[in-house]
Amino acid sequence: MELYTHYMRMALSLAERGTGWTSPNPRVGCVIFDEKEERVLGWGYHRRFGGPHAEVKALERAGERARGATAVVNLEPCCHFGKTPPCAPRLVEAGVGRVVVGMRDPNPCVDGGGIEILRKAGIDVVLGVLEEECLHVNRGFVKALTGGRPWVTVKAALSLDGAIALGDGESRWISGALSRSKAHLLRGENDAILVGIGTVLKDDPELTVRLVSGQSPLRVVLDSRLRTPACAKVIGDGRCLVVGTAESDPKRAETLRKAGAEVVLLDAPEGRFRLDELLSLLVRRGVLRLLVEGGASVIQSFIEERLVDEVSLFLAPKFLGRGIPFTGNLRLRHMGEAIALRAATIRQVDGDLWLEAMPCLPA
Amino acid sequence: MELYTHYMRMALSLAERGTGWTSPNPRVGCVIFDEKEERVLGWGYHRRFGGPHAEVKALERAGERARGATAVVNLEPCCHFGKTPPCAPRLVEAGVGRVVVGMRDPNPCVDGGGIEILRKAGIDVVLGVLEEECLHVNRGFVKALTGGRPWVTVKAALSLDGAIALGDGESRWISGALSRSKAHLLRGENDAILVGIGTVLKDDPELTVRLVSGQSPLRVVLDSRLRTPACAKVIGDGRCLVVGTAESDPKRAETLRKAGAEVVLLDAPEGRFRLDELLSLLVRRGVLRLLVEGGASVIQSFIEERLVDEVSLFLAPKFLGRGIPFTGNLRLRHMGEAIALRAATIRQVDGDLWLEAMPCLPA
Repeated sequence: MELYTHYMRMALSLAERGTGWTSPNPRVGCVIFDEKEERVLGWGYHRRFGGPHAEVKALERAGERARGATAVVNLEPCCHFGKTPPCAPRLVEAGVGRVVVGMRDPNPCVDGGGIEILRKAGIDVVLGVLEEECLHVNRGFVKALTGGRPWVTVKAALSLDGAIALGDGESRWISGALSRSKAHLLRGENDAILVGIGTVLKDDPELTVRLVSGQSPLRVVLDSRLRTPACAKVIGDGRCLVVGTAESDPKRAETLRKAGAEVVLLDAPEGRFRLDELLSLLVRRGVLRLLVEGGASVIQSFIEERLVDEVSLFLAPKFLGRGIPFTGNLRLRHMGEAIALRAATIRQVDGDLWLEAMPCLPA
Repeated sequence: MELYTHYMRMALSLAERGTGWTSPNPRVGCVIFDEKEERVLGWGYHRRFGGPHAEVKALERAGERARGATAVVNLEPCCHFGKTPPCAPRLVEAGVGRVVVGMRDPNPCVDGGGIEILRKAGIDVVLGVLEEECLHVNRGFVKALTGGRPWVTVKAALSLDGAIALGDGESRWISGALSRSKAHLLRGENDAILVGIGTVLKDDPELTVRLVSGQSPLRVVLDSRLRTPACAKVIGDGRCLVVGTAESDPKRAETLRKAGAEVVLLDAPEGRFRLDELLSLLVRRGVLRLLVEGGASVIQSFIEERLVDEVSLFLAPKFLGRGIPFTGNLRLRHMGEAIALRAATIRQVDGDLWLEAMPCLPA
């Protein structure tokens, strides 16, 4: 079992090399190895959507040596035709002796079907090695398939006294340069970034991946009155979705469309967007992971509707006093209503603290 | 030199055993060892104010073996008569061959005088081993002698979004049980704890050391209108100082005195206490280290007057939304005015994060 764990870690690390390029496909890595000699015979990962799957690349590299060998893959091999032919029959054809699988594929077109093909062909299947880690690597994919919405990460840079900006909105820069690079890495991991119109009007951000290499995600602006300026940097090369309401001025929508943005109109009863509608719209467009970058009222809405799966906070060691509070106004009535988190990791990034945590599920 | 560093660490760790009991004396530890055989011959520390000094205890333990040996001590041996006879002449008498000293004693009655006595007697003196650590262990003592005020530590338990309480003042409990024990340890390290009247009226805290062993510090309440109830727990056994103003009602002062509190009246131009006056009053009473426990407006005042030397923050992984912000309202005009800190240490305490940091000195 320890041997399989070792190779599963290798497969996971390969899977992560596809980060930012595979959606709406999952991130998958595969290692084919010889159990007796403990020697890697082939490896591969899913590099980008539409490209070959991890198993195919690994089989290619292993060639004839795959016969009788063990394949380790973090996600159940597929059994359905997508952009490429299914992988499970390919493993059978290649004659591998055993397949070690991290987790079942929650995709209803697979969901055990891949494993069945392997077992029926007489291949030994070991299931659930490092399952938790495998689920984590594909948390966006799993959330999309099982929850019908993207995995939502709230990112913010805040002072130790909880402000994301001074009272007048000044927020540049709370965190240090290295934290900002890390934040760009985080953008590259997500398929879309969402901000409120306040952030666009105040900071005119590009919301692209610049400080590190990576693909820039789709930009989403919550903008009920379509106040996004036609020259806003967020529209940029056009991968920008401005979300208005049925009451928005059609002329403004037209202007924004001409400027290169896509405009969609959603219900907003009592002036508040139906975030669940927005999220299912995004997941239908292949967004598995969404990064919410602010401002405070947007973050507050996501927290209040219990739509936050993860927070990634850069805590700068400074005090700003009563600025713009990170979480807006949650209107808690007593301490028991506090939104509890499990601190997953805390790291020092230059002088800042980088905390990644997940809200505890409501009891 | 490495040998000296090793024994200096030992001396420092002995010195820390006096924590909470030595003020207004410094914390001192002493190790006497044989350089050739690398063997400890005697050790001692200053256990409590009025008791024997570290060097004397170490010499006692070493006895005749001290002759020709090396004494390592984190603070320059004293040369003046205090509660006990001076230590430098005692080391000369005992015939030690070398004295390794962490730092000079900033006390104007010593300030190199102890080292001079040793050198004149032909003893080799090595000065400055682990000086930074030695200064840190006695930061209260050093601040008192060189700055004329206690070393001020602000302690707070706050949510990740910077609140020390909900909007209605509820603050029990933001941090976990283990953090609260650590906070009691912190109390035991300080000679006085200070809170504002708001905290007394809201929480009726005891402000004693209970969850760990240690001496309870003097309690200080900033209370311009002397609203502290006569039955307040903070008055407790009487080691409580209520600080009013010249305009305070003398009857209230009388009531509080009868209840067992000491009442002092200080200037408060425009309703704000002269904190510098308060701090010099405290230092004259032997308070080397002061712990400021809140609430927000008290913390704000200390930050604004640049009187904070250290912060000890328990960050609970939860969101409270717009509660009572930790630092009150600092009224910064731009990001350049943010109070920058150097994060010294960050530790995980159960689920909480315990951050100790020091404000950077203004440029």
